[in-house]
Amino acid sequence: MFTLHPQLEQDTIVLGKLLLSRVLLMKNSCYPWIILVPEREYVTEISDLSVAGRSLLMEETTAVAGLLKEIYQADKINIAALGNVVPQFHMHIVARFTTDKTWPDPVWGAGKPREYYTSEELRETVAKLLSKLVLLPDFTAID
Amino acid sequence: MFTLHPQLEQDTIVLGKLLLSRVLLMKNSCYPWIILVPEREYVTEISDLSVAGRSLLMEETTAVAGLLKEIYQADKINIAALGNVVPQFHMHIVARFTTDKTWPDPVWGAGKPREYYTSEELRETVAKLLSKLVLLPDFTAID
Repeated sequence: MFTLHPQLEQDTIVLGKLLLSRVLLMKNSCYPWIILVPEREYVTEISDLSVAGRSLLMEETTAVAGLLKEIYQADKINIAALGNVVPQFHMHIVARFTTDKTWPDPVWGAGKPREYYTSEELRETVAKLLSKLVLLPDFTAID
Repeated sequence: MFTLHPQLEQDTIVLGKLLLSRVLLMKNSCYPWIILVPEREYVTEISDLSVAGRSLLMEETTAVAGLLKEIYQADKINIAALGNVVPQFHMHIVARFTTDKTWPDPVWGAGKPREYYTSEELRETVAKLLSKLVLLPDFTAID
Protein backbone atom coordinates (compact mmCIF):
# COMPACT_ATOMS: atom_id res chain seq x y z
CA MET A 1 0.00 0.00 0.00
CA PHE A 2 1.14 3.51 -0.78
CA THR A 3 2.14 5.70 2.13
CA LEU A 4 3.63 9.14 1.84
CA HIS A 5 7.22 9.49 3.06
CA PRO A 6 7.26 11.15 6.51
CA GLN A 7 9.50 13.97 5.28
CA LEU A 8 7.06 14.83 2.49
CA GLU A 9 4.22 14.52 4.97
CA GLN A 10 5.95 17.05 7.17
CA ASP A 11 7.00 19.50 4.46
CA THR A 12 3.75 19.70 2.51
CA ILE A 13 -0.01 20.05 2.58
CA VAL A 14 -2.19 17.66 0.60
CA LEU A 15 -4.29 19.43 -2.03
CA GLY A 16 -5.79 16.35 -3.59
CA LYS A 17 -5.08 13.66 -6.11
CA LEU A 18 -4.91 13.13 -9.82
CA LEU A 19 -5.21 9.79 -11.59
CA LEU A 20 -1.66 8.78 -10.70
CA SER A 21 -0.29 11.31 -8.25
CA ARG A 22 -1.00 12.86 -4.93
CA VAL A 23 -0.84 16.65 -5.26
CA LEU A 24 1.04 18.43 -2.49
CA LEU A 25 1.79 22.06 -1.73
CA MET A 26 5.26 22.71 -0.37
CA LYS A 27 5.20 24.69 2.86
CA ASN A 28 7.55 27.34 1.55
CA SER A 29 6.09 30.70 0.67
CA CYS A 30 9.22 31.79 -1.21
CA TYR A 31 7.88 30.08 -4.34
CA PRO A 32 4.60 28.55 -5.52
CA TRP A 33 5.75 24.94 -5.33
CA ILE A 34 3.77 21.80 -5.99
CA ILE A 35 4.99 18.24 -5.58
CA LEU A 36 3.45 15.25 -7.35
CA VAL A 37 3.94 11.84 -5.79
CA PRO A 38 2.81 8.83 -7.83
CA GLU A 39 0.70 6.73 -5.47
CA ARG A 40 2.68 3.59 -6.10
CA GLU A 41 4.84 1.59 -3.74
CA TYR A 42 8.63 1.52 -3.98
CA VAL A 43 9.17 4.00 -6.78
CA THR A 44 12.51 5.74 -6.51
CA GLU A 45 13.59 6.13 -10.12
CA ILE A 46 11.45 7.10 -13.09
CA SER A 47 12.08 3.65 -14.56
CA ASP A 48 10.18 2.08 -11.65
CA LEU A 49 6.96 3.39 -13.18
CA SER A 50 5.32 1.65 -16.14
CA VAL A 51 5.27 3.34 -19.55
CA ALA A 52 1.63 4.24 -18.90
CA GLY A 53 2.52 5.57 -15.45
CA ARG A 54 5.28 7.74 -16.87
CA SER A 55 3.02 9.06 -19.55
CA LEU A 56 0.41 9.98 -16.94
CA LEU A 57 3.07 11.57 -14.75
CA MET A 58 4.24 13.64 -17.71
CA GLU A 59 0.72 14.88 -18.42
CA GLU A 60 -0.01 15.57 -14.75
CA THR A 61 3.26 17.46 -14.46
CA THR A 62 2.45 19.49 -17.57
CA ALA A 63 -1.04 20.30 -16.32
CA VAL A 64 0.26 21.50 -12.95
CA ALA A 65 3.08 23.44 -14.59
CA GLY A 66 0.60 25.20 -16.87
CA LEU A 67 -1.69 26.00 -13.97
CA LEU A 68 1.15 27.50 -11.88
CA LYS A 69 2.35 29.51 -14.86
CA GLU A 70 -1.13 30.86 -15.46
CA ILE A 71 -2.07 31.66 -11.86
CA TYR A 72 1.21 33.30 -10.95
CA GLN A 73 2.34 34.61 -14.34
CA ALA A 74 5.62 32.85 -13.62
CA ASP A 75 8.71 33.66 -15.65
CA LYS A 76 9.75 30.01 -15.71
CA ILE A 77 8.59 26.68 -14.41
CA ASN A 78 11.24 24.40 -12.93
CA ILE A 79 10.54 20.68 -13.05
CA ALA A 80 12.72 18.13 -11.28
CA ALA A 81 12.85 14.63 -9.88
CA LEU A 82 15.87 14.55 -7.59
CA GLY A 83 15.34 12.26 -4.61
CA ASN A 84 18.80 12.65 -3.12
CA VAL A 85 17.30 13.33 0.29
CA VAL A 86 13.83 11.74 0.16
CA PRO A 87 14.00 8.50 -1.82
CA GLN A 88 10.27 8.20 -2.51
CA PHE A 89 9.83 9.35 -6.10
CA HIS A 90 8.41 12.87 -6.25
CA MET A 91 8.25 15.50 -8.95
CA HIS A 92 8.89 19.11 -8.03
CA ILE A 93 7.06 21.76 -10.03
CA VAL A 94 8.11 25.24 -9.00
CA ALA A 95 7.04 28.63 -10.33
CA ARG A 96 10.09 30.86 -10.64
CA PHE A 97 10.44 34.59 -11.06
CA THR A 98 13.43 36.64 -12.10
CA THR A 99 12.77 38.55 -8.87
CA ASP A 100 12.62 35.55 -6.52
CA LYS A 101 15.14 35.03 -3.74
CA THR A 102 17.14 32.36 -5.49
CA TRP A 103 16.90 33.20 -9.21
CA PRO A 104 18.49 31.87 -11.39
CA ASP A 105 19.79 29.16 -9.06
CA PRO A 106 17.68 26.12 -8.23
CA VAL A 107 15.50 26.16 -5.11
CA TRP A 108 16.92 22.99 -3.58
CA GLY A 109 19.99 22.51 -1.43
CA ALA A 110 21.76 23.75 1.65
CA GLY A 111 21.16 27.36 2.61
CA LYS A 112 18.23 27.89 0.27
CA PRO A 113 15.54 30.19 1.68
CA ARG A 114 12.46 28.82 3.32
CA GLU A 115 9.61 30.83 4.74
CA TYR A 116 6.36 29.54 6.13
CA TYR A 117 3.00 30.74 4.92
CA THR A 118 0.96 32.59 7.52
CA SER A 119 -2.37 30.83 8.05
CA GLU A 120 -4.09 33.51 5.97
CA GLU A 121 -1.57 33.25 3.14
CA LEU A 122 -1.93 29.51 3.24
CA ARG A 123 -5.71 29.65 3.05
CA GLU A 124 -5.53 32.04 0.09
CA THR A 125 -2.88 30.00 -1.70
CA VAL A 126 -4.74 26.74 -1.28
CA ALA A 127 -7.99 28.35 -2.46
CA LYS A 128 -6.30 29.84 -5.51
CA LEU A 129 -4.67 26.54 -6.46
CA LEU A 130 -7.80 24.48 -5.83
CA SER A 131 -9.90 26.84 -7.97
CA LYS A 132 -7.77 25.75 -10.96
CA LEU A 133 -6.97 22.19 -9.92
CA VAL A 134 -10.66 21.28 -9.75
CA LEU A 135 -10.91 22.13 -13.44
CA LEU A 136 -8.56 19.25 -14.29
CA PRO A 137 -10.75 16.28 -15.29
CA ASP A 138 -9.01 13.78 -13.03
CA PHE A 139 -8.53 15.88 -9.92
CA THR A 140 -10.17 15.01 -6.63
CA ALA A 141 -9.78 17.38 -3.72
CA ILE A 142 -8.93 15.85 -0.34
CA ASP A 143 -10.19 17.46 2.85
CA MET B 1 14.71 25.12 -38.18
CA PHE B 2 16.13 23.82 -34.95
CA THR B 3 19.44 25.22 -33.82
CA LEU B 4 21.13 24.45 -30.55
CA HIS B 5 21.45 27.37 -28.12
CA PRO B 6 25.03 28.73 -28.18
CA GLN B 7 25.45 28.15 -24.44
CA LEU B 8 24.53 24.47 -24.80
CA GLU B 9 26.77 24.28 -27.85
CA GLN B 10 29.64 25.57 -25.76
CA ASP B 11 29.00 23.49 -22.64
CA THR B 12 28.44 20.12 -24.26
CA ILE B 13 29.57 17.56 -26.80
CA VAL B 14 27.07 16.03 -29.20
CA LEU B 15 26.77 12.27 -28.80
CA GLY B 16 23.96 11.74 -31.28
CA LYS B 17 20.24 11.93 -31.59
CA LEU B 18 17.15 10.01 -30.60
CA LEU B 19 13.76 10.27 -32.28
CA LEU B 20 12.97 13.58 -30.61
CA SER B 21 16.07 14.79 -28.85
CA ARG B 22 19.66 15.64 -29.49
CA VAL B 23 21.84 13.81 -26.96
CA LEU B 24 24.59 15.90 -25.40
CA LEU B 25 27.34 15.17 -22.89
CA MET B 26 27.97 17.97 -20.41
CA LYS B 27 31.63 18.97 -20.28
CA ASN B 28 31.86 18.49 -16.54
CA SER B 29 33.74 15.48 -15.29
CA CYS B 30 32.37 15.87 -11.75
CA TYR B 31 29.29 13.89 -12.75
CA PRO B 32 28.16 11.73 -15.69
CA TRP B 33 25.71 14.26 -17.11
CA ILE B 34 23.62 14.00 -20.25
CA ILE B 35 21.34 16.67 -21.66
CA LEU B 36 18.46 15.97 -24.03
CA VAL B 37 17.26 18.80 -26.25
CA PRO B 38 14.08 18.19 -28.26
CA GLU B 39 14.90 19.22 -31.81
CA ARG B 40 11.97 21.55 -32.07
CA GLU B 41 11.91 25.30 -32.49
CA TYR B 42 10.85 27.64 -29.69
CA VAL B 43 10.31 25.17 -26.90
CA THR B 44 10.88 26.71 -23.48
CA GLU B 45 8.26 25.03 -21.31
CA ILE B 46 7.21 21.39 -21.32
CA SER B 47 3.76 22.49 -22.49
CA ASP B 48 5.29 23.74 -25.76
CA LEU B 49 5.74 20.12 -26.81
CA SER B 50 2.83 18.05 -28.12
CA VAL B 51 1.46 15.18 -26.04
CA ALA B 52 3.32 12.79 -28.36
CA GLY B 53 6.50 14.87 -28.00
CA ARG B 54 6.25 14.81 -24.22
CA SER B 55 5.67 11.10 -24.20
CA LEU B 56 8.75 10.58 -26.38
CA LEU B 57 10.77 12.89 -24.18
CA MET B 58 9.71 10.92 -21.12
CA GLU B 59 10.78 7.63 -22.70
CA GLU B 60 14.06 9.06 -23.99
CA THR B 61 14.77 10.51 -20.55
CA THR B 62 14.00 7.18 -18.90
CA ALA B 63 16.22 5.29 -21.34
CA VAL B 64 19.16 7.63 -20.76
CA ALA B 65 18.60 7.58 -17.00
CA GLY B 66 18.64 3.78 -17.02
CA LEU B 67 21.78 3.69 -19.11
CA LEU B 68 23.64 6.11 -16.80
CA LYS B 69 22.50 4.16 -13.77
CA GLU B 70 23.72 0.92 -15.30
CA ILE B 71 27.06 2.13 -16.64
CA TYR B 72 28.07 4.07 -13.53
CA GLN B 73 26.20 2.13 -10.84
CA ALA B 74 24.85 5.50 -9.76
CA ASP B 75 23.21 5.91 -6.37
CA LYS B 76 20.55 8.22 -7.81
CA ILE B 77 19.61 9.78 -11.08
CA ASN B 78 18.60 13.45 -11.02
CA ILE B 79 16.26 14.63 -13.75
CA ALA B 80 15.40 18.28 -14.28
CA ALA B 81 14.12 20.80 -16.76
CA LEU B 82 15.07 24.20 -15.34
CA GLY B 83 15.85 26.71 -18.08
CA ASN B 84 16.42 29.69 -15.81
CA VAL B 85 19.68 30.46 -17.57
CA VAL B 86 19.33 28.87 -21.02
CA PRO B 87 15.74 29.27 -22.22
CA GLN B 88 15.88 26.57 -24.91
CA PHE B 89 14.12 23.56 -23.37
CA HIS B 90 16.61 20.94 -22.23
CA MET B 91 16.38 18.01 -19.88
CA HIS B 92 19.25 17.32 -17.50
CA ILE B 93 19.93 13.70 -16.59
CA VAL B 94 22.70 13.42 -14.04
CA ALA B 95 24.19 10.36 -12.34
CA ARG B 96 24.72 11.12 -8.68
CA PHE B 97 26.77 9.39 -6.01
CA THR B 98 26.69 9.77 -2.26
CA THR B 99 30.42 10.42 -2.61
CA ASP B 100 30.22 13.12 -5.30
CA LYS B 101 31.34 16.68 -4.67
CA THR B 102 27.87 18.14 -4.27
CA TRP B 103 25.77 15.36 -2.74
CA PRO B 104 22.97 15.66 -1.71
CA ASP B 105 22.62 19.16 -3.15
CA PRO B 106 21.72 19.68 -6.79
CA VAL B 107 24.49 20.15 -9.35
CA TRP B 108 23.22 23.46 -10.75
CA GLY B 109 23.81 26.97 -9.48
CA ALA B 110 26.45 29.41 -8.44
CA GLY B 111 29.62 27.95 -6.97
CA LYS B 112 28.92 24.39 -8.04
CA PRO B 113 32.04 22.46 -9.05
CA ARG B 114 33.01 22.08 -12.64
CA GLU B 115 35.98 20.17 -13.96
CA TYR B 116 36.89 19.49 -17.55
CA TYR B 117 37.54 16.02 -18.88
CA THR B 118 41.09 15.44 -20.07
CA SER B 119 41.07 14.40 -23.72
CA GLU B 120 41.68 10.80 -22.70
CA GLU B 121 38.89 10.83 -20.10
CA LEU B 122 36.61 12.38 -22.67
CA ARG B 123 37.43 9.74 -25.28
CA GLU B 124 36.77 6.97 -22.75
CA THR B 125 33.55 8.52 -21.48
CA VAL B 126 32.15 9.07 -24.94
CA ALA B 127 33.08 5.51 -25.96
CA LYS B 128 31.44 4.07 -22.85
CA LEU B 129 28.25 6.07 -23.36
CA LEU B 130 28.07 5.35 -27.08
CA SER B 131 28.51 1.62 -26.50
CA LYS B 132 25.16 1.67 -24.66
CA LEU B 133 23.43 4.47 -26.56
CA VAL B 134 23.79 2.58 -29.86
CA LEU B 135 21.71 -0.21 -28.35
CA LEU B 136 18.69 2.12 -28.12
CA PRO B 137 16.53 1.44 -31.19
CA ASP B 138 16.16 5.10 -32.17
CA PHE B 139 19.67 6.33 -31.53
CA THR B 140 21.87 7.67 -34.31
CA ALA B 141 25.45 8.60 -33.51
CA ILE B 142 26.69 11.90 -34.90
CA ASP B 143 30.34 12.26 -35.87
